[in-house]
Amino acid sequence: MNQTAELANRLIAAPSVTPATGLVFDEFEAMVAPLGFDVHRFTRGDGEPGSEEAPVENLFAIRRGPVGSRHFAFAGHLDVVPPGEGWTSAPFAPEVRGELLHGRGAVDMKGAIAAMVSAVEQVPQDAGTISFIITGDEEGPALHGTRALIDYMREAGHQPDLCLVGEPTSVHRLGDMMKIGRRGSLNVWLEVDGAQGHVAYPHNADNPLPRMVAMLSELNALHLDDGTEWFQPSNLEITDIEVGNPATNVIPAKAKARISIRFNDLHSGASLARQVVEIAERHGGKARPVISGEPFLTPPGVFSRIIADAVEAETGLVPEASTSGGTSDARFLRAVCPVIEFGLCNATMHKCDEAVALADLDTLSRIYARIASAVLAQR
Amino acid sequence: MNQTAELANRLIAAPSVTPATGLVFDEFEAMVAPLGFDVHRFTRGDGEPGSEEAPVENLFAIRRGPVGSRHFAFAGHLDVVPPGEGWTSAPFAPEVRGELLHGRGAVDMKGAIAAMVSAVEQVPQDAGTISFIITGDEEGPALHGTRALIDYMREAGHQPDLCLVGEPTSVHRLGDMMKIGRRGSLNVWLEVDGAQGHVAYPHNADNPLPRMVAMLSELNALHLDDGTEWFQPSNLEITDIEVGNPATNVIPAKAKARISIRFNDLHSGASLARQVVEIAERHGGKARPVISGEPFLTPPGVFSRIIADAVEAETGLVPEASTSGGTSDARFLRAVCPVIEFGLCNATMHKCDEAVALADLDTLSRIYARIASAVLAQR
Ligand SMILES: [Zn+2]
Ligand SMILES: [Zn+2]
Repeated sequence: MNQTAELANRLIAAPSVTPATGLVFDEFEAMVAPLGFDVHRFTRGDGEPGSEEAPVENLFAIRRGPVGSRHFAFAGHLDVVPPGEGWTSAPFAPEVRGELLHGRGAVDMKGAIAAMVSAVEQVPQDAGTISFIITGDEEGPALHGTRALIDYMREAGHQPDLCLVGEPTSVHRLGDMMKIGRRGSLNVWLEVDGAQGHVAYPHNADNPLPRMVAMLSELNALHLDDGTEWFQPSNLEITDIEVGNPATNVIPAKAKARISIRFNDLHSGASLARQVVEIAERHGGKARPVISGEPFLTPPGVFSRIIADAVEAETGLVPEASTSGGTSDARFLRAVCPVIEFGLCNATMHKCDEAVALADLDTLSRIYARIASAVLAQR
Repeated sequence: MNQTAELANRLIAAPSVTPATGLVFDEFEAMVAPLGFDVHRFTRGDGEPGSEEAPVENLFAIRRGPVGSRHFAFAGHLDVVPPGEGWTSAPFAPEVRGELLHGRGAVDMKGAIAAMVSAVEQVPQDAGTISFIITGDEEGPALHGTRALIDYMREAGHQPDLCLVGEPTSVHRLGDMMKIGRRGSLNVWLEVDGAQGHVAYPHNADNPLPRMVAMLSELNALHLDDGTEWFQPSNLEITDIEVGNPATNVIPAKAKARISIRFNDLHSGASLARQVVEIAERHGGKARPVISGEPFLTPPGVFSRIIADAVEAETGLVPEASTSGGTSDARFLRAVCPVIEFGLCNATMHKCDEAVALADLDTLSRIYARIASAVLAQR
């Protein structure tokens, strides 16, 4: 096993189903403290386990370069999704089979965090300031995770020049894709009220379902945009409809539904929410929008070029600059500084038998070292 | 209390939440046996209480007139809907307050059955044959109720010339409405399959909800007919939609819905079922139709005139000949002979504090006696 794989092994062996606290952070701290990092850990949330307010641990670590030097940040999460059923080996007992290291979090994203740590060893302290922004709540509600870290950084005056998030962005081969943006995400809970009654006497009732069906028809037919140079078209999905009327001869009193919109930077969460509310109200319904992330874009430029060059130097591949896929903590970090995401292959993420190639861990640590060195060397 | 009210009192005091057996039938038998009726009782169903196969009692009673005389049948049910909450007096302890007799079944339809019994006392046996077709399962699934009685009557060779069902057809005043027909009833369970996936990757999923919404839009927009001389237009209601997807970021794999159609005699259950199945399949869905009753119509003629004349003689009102409202056991009896429904005021049926005017019980018994006499005197 290469050194990065050994670090990944230690992190995977510390179970950390979201929200994570304790052991896995102890392991991480033990890795970076000897490298000259000042470590600040704090826990947020005081609710029951399983609730949205369950305790979450966060960690910020910084190794300061010379006064006036640049500041490069690695960001990531030590929590993992629940292992689920069907594993060949125990999910929190990392095991090498062939060229692969198996275990929950191997690619998403303990392997990448291990690569960050061994990358830092390759960058001398006088090259500049490097920090780690590590949360235990990215896979969960993300209420007390990276948001709380950003608040802490603001108060403490830590301002990176670029942040690299180690999510598994590669698809078929390590290096084939990075994310320079992500779409925003909006969920809307819809409701239409009517008046219950007997199907034989519809004039004495008011069936909410024709209004709900018409509302959903109109929402589903919305043409939001045709995409942009960097984003695919925004997309709306109806994700749920609930009436809950078991009686065949009863007209129900109420209908509920939910839609989910993934949108590009031609929209804001608020502008889309207004549009949905207007349609819902025109059909006699109500809409409760919840924006879970605004879109972000770090337009191609010097930072994406640094990353592409580092990837190409180590893999021979020029990474595609993509904005596809689900949300990540980059939606919060965008408020701090430019953000780009690059990491391992995502084929097994969130699945059973999650695994990472040992060679990819080693390659990724060298890519990350090149990126950190190049960012710190700028200007 | 008049005599009909006393009989109603005895029937209400025998609790008989659907499906009914035993005591309430003992009471009824004790009322009609002394009047010269041969009584045949039988129980069907051997399932658990609460199941569709729970035991149901049925009763056929006949008092034969001279050979070759006409045969008039009273039909009704001794079961009642559950009392529910909020009663002023105990639902199965009948109580007179003011001019009203209170208790579950007062109007639907133990009061009417009491009026039938006291009507029979006013008609001499040599006027013709009179029978009672009484079930304990009209308010329930109606699998083993009137259908089983019809089978029995066929086997035993009992063939009435007219059947009067004592459902509470009057609206504001006793006598203002009779039913000469009822619409048919069809429920259809709809299903659309898709493929589950993540809302961020809709091209890897297949959301069934747009197809379900389009299917329901088309069904809801169907113009079935404009009604007939005797029937209001057929009507379709969407009664339920179920997806059951709690995850905001998941595209669901399946959607279910249900519609209910009340239809007039321009359609058959089978023709409508075919139409719905065609629409469902065109939208990539499946449809499972269940016909719970075909429409029936006893076109205005000699029988409806006999009833109208009897009502007018006792109340001064000319009853409207209606085909509105829900189904009744007339949907089965129509296969035996012409059927007309006439009974008490339905304002309190299926509600708490169900009550009947004492005077109406007396008037109804005289109306029923006039009807029976007139039908038997025909030809
Ligand atoms: Zn992740
Ligand atoms: Zn009834």
